[in-house]
Amino acid sequence: MDQRVSFVTLVVTDLEATRRFYVDGLGWEPEVHVTGEVLMFRVADKVVLSLWAEAGFVAEVGHAPTRGGTPPITLSHNLATTDGVDTVLEQARAAGASEVLAAEQREWGGYSGYFADPDGFRWEVAVNPGEIGQSVLP
Amino acid sequence: MDQRVSFVTLVVTDLEATRRFYVDGLGWEPEVHVTGEVLMFRVADKVVLSLWAEAGFVAEVGHAPTRGGTPPITLSHNLATTDGVDTVLEQARAAGASEVLAAEQREWGGYSGYFADPDGFRWEVAVNPGEIGQSVLP
Repeated sequence: MDQRVSFVTLVVTDLEATRRFYVDGLGWEPEVHVTGEVLMFRVADKVVLSLWAEAGFVAEVGHAPTRGGTPPITLSHNLATTDGVDTVLEQARAAGASEVLAAEQREWGGYSGYFADPDGFRWEVAVNPGEIGQSVLP
Repeated sequence: MDQRVSFVTLVVTDLEATRRFYVDGLGWEPEVHVTGEVLMFRVADKVVLSLWAEAGFVAEVGHAPTRGGTPPITLSHNLATTDGVDTVLEQARAAGASEVLAAEQREWGGYSGYFADPDGFRWEVAVNPGEIGQSVLP
């Protein structure tokens, strides 16, 4: 199995609330949108972020997803500057992020904060000055 | 906020079990490995999959992640052929996947199955003949 991720899929409870946050709030442009079912955004050259209404997940994966609390994942959006981090966190707040954790210096050498989307999925907004952090910048 | 994901981070309970599965089992090569803390794999040109021990997540994000059951996300690994899908699912089974759901034809036009990693994170292994599915192939 090659070391590749093609789609990252987050299971959401209200796809219209998700659409309002990512499309109306953050200004993202979906590549696919099937109302009430799925919303897909290109987030890297060969990677798509898919927001999938829960019923589809349950039918295909065969399990109800665990709900409530903080999902055990984060997605990160890395930037070159700390000002960029603060700006994106403000944009997320303006878009209606359900929680925003102000950025701070981290012991691993970076500067990062977090916001939560309508289902509580945490996005890290970060400067990571390490080699691997620099390698993901556009 | 640009439409970009830089890191996908899965919060894991036993990083050594995670290492055994992805490195020894699937044969992946980490780009960063801090024993007991984090393991990082390049999974697209500018995207890194990070497996993060729970204590680090709790300290930085400020919440304990929800545990038990099926996490509300999937990662997908897309391939060009149905034989490729079956082969990867067999590799995952041999690597000790905690659950393998055999691939089948899907009503959305594809062919896909699932396996679960040691923390129950579901990987979809798929052929997606649609335009967006073809666009993520190497």
